[in-house]
Amino acid sequence: MRILLTNDDGVFAPGLRALRKELVRLGEVSVVAPILEQSGVGHSITLLSPLVSKPIEDDDGRVLGLGIDGSPADCVKLAIYELLDRPPDLIVSGINAGANAGINVLYSGTVAAAIEGAFFQITSVAVSLEFSERFDYPHAAKQAVGVIEKILANKPPKGSLFNVNLPSHGRGEPKGIKVVPMGVGRHGEGFEKRRDPRGRTYFWMTYQPPFRLEGEETDVTALADNYITVTPLHFDLTRYDQLGQAKEWTWS
Amino acid sequence: MRILLTNDDGVFAPGLRALRKELVRLGEVSVVAPILEQSGVGHSITLLSPLVSKPIEDDDGRVLGLGIDGSPADCVKLAIYELLDRPPDLIVSGINAGANAGINVLYSGTVAAAIEGAFFQITSVAVSLEFSERFDYPHAAKQAVGVIEKILANKPPKGSLFNVNLPSHGRGEPKGIKVVPMGVGRHGEGFEKRRDPRGRTYFWMTYQPPFRLEGEETDVTALADNYITVTPLHFDLTRYDQLGQAKEWTWS
Repeated sequence: MRILLTNDDGVFAPGLRALRKELVRLGEVSVVAPILEQSGVGHSITLLSPLVSKPIEDDDGRVLGLGIDGSPADCVKLAIYELLDRPPDLIVSGINAGANAGINVLYSGTVAAAIEGAFFQITSVAVSLEFSERFDYPHAAKQAVGVIEKILANKPPKGSLFNVNLPSHGRGEPKGIKVVPMGVGRHGEGFEKRRDPRGRTYFWMTYQPPFRLEGEETDVTALADNYITVTPLHFDLTRYDQLGQAKEWTWS
Repeated sequence: MRILLTNDDGVFAPGLRALRKELVRLGEVSVVAPILEQSGVGHSITLLSPLVSKPIEDDDGRVLGLGIDGSPADCVKLAIYELLDRPPDLIVSGINAGANAGINVLYSGTVAAAIEGAFFQITSVAVSLEFSERFDYPHAAKQAVGVIEKILANKPPKGSLFNVNLPSHGRGEPKGIKVVPMGVGRHGEGFEKRRDPRGRTYFWMTYQPPFRLEGEETDVTALADNYITVTPLHFDLTRYDQLGQAKEWTWS
């Protein structure tokens, strides 16, 4: 099996390197990832400037992969069209430093890389690790590859897309794996208003974990309950229930 | 009615200015938009640097609105949390220079701003104009506001989200308005491989219009047929058919 590994924290991020070490058990791993951290880039692509790829070496001088001065989605596109000899059988994006659950999925470059893979009808998995004081990536990578093996063992249709979140290890071993929908509730956020040394106002985004909503179990609530979450995603944003209604509206 | 107007082509873009002139018929319009062009930024948000807002004046010295050194989604967040006295009743994003139909919707900063509005349960409309040699924004703005009026007349639930595409005017008056799903087919794209003056390789993304797929009518096909397209969107990326199946898989 040929695996393309990417992320949004950058090619040097420890989450990617730990995941690479475990993924080699499943096949041949090619790394094509952003040179710089791209957190919060969402599904951005680079239209207005060129992309350059650069071989990146590991500490011991071995080639780790290719670094791209673009977004995670750019990396997937460029890898498939130009950099790899043939398309991969699986695309893995991560391990992201911080969960990508609930509506944060829409902001996530990690998930966007996996969505881009699904555009090409290649099965793709995004993996994120809940924030904690100390990220244990080697442990998370073992968990992640265990989940990926289980997904593949169930032979999902080509081009399937999964979002996996791992709870932080500070809370002890996860209670198990749960297949859950994406939460659609808002999380706590806002801006801190500050003044720069010249007296000008600026704003810095703040963030609190998603509100705990009673009711339906989602990736947000299951992760908070110390479960590994798996959410099958798609990229058709059509709201079909409203589509039917809106066709009946008066338009002329 | 209070309307927040934003875009991804930047606060100085003619598409935004033309739309503003027409939207004032419907209510009080506040402009909060990126200072610089943000095409292809998707649903990016600015986490790693602060945001600054700057009053922007029109040619005749009147305040046009606020320019933000961030993404379209940043503009919506900052407007609602910090810059407006109270939340708008409607968010409009556009007019984008170029269609946002099919899977391009996922890359679109224009649509991302509208999705961000829907996160806040505010009805939001993204408007894009198909590419042509000469964009006739004043005409497009009249068409767009006509469509927005029709949407509002049908009293969609609060927080509804619509993606509107206008065909280029080079093809004569549109045949009408069609409510259609988002196309999920791939479009033509690739990279041109070039050498810089120092002999280094770089890649520049190329783009061809989406393949014309036979079968289901979508935003892509209806726009190609010279219809104004309206697509109700949502932001729940859960693939519910696969969710049920995956719950039955072996996970332990």
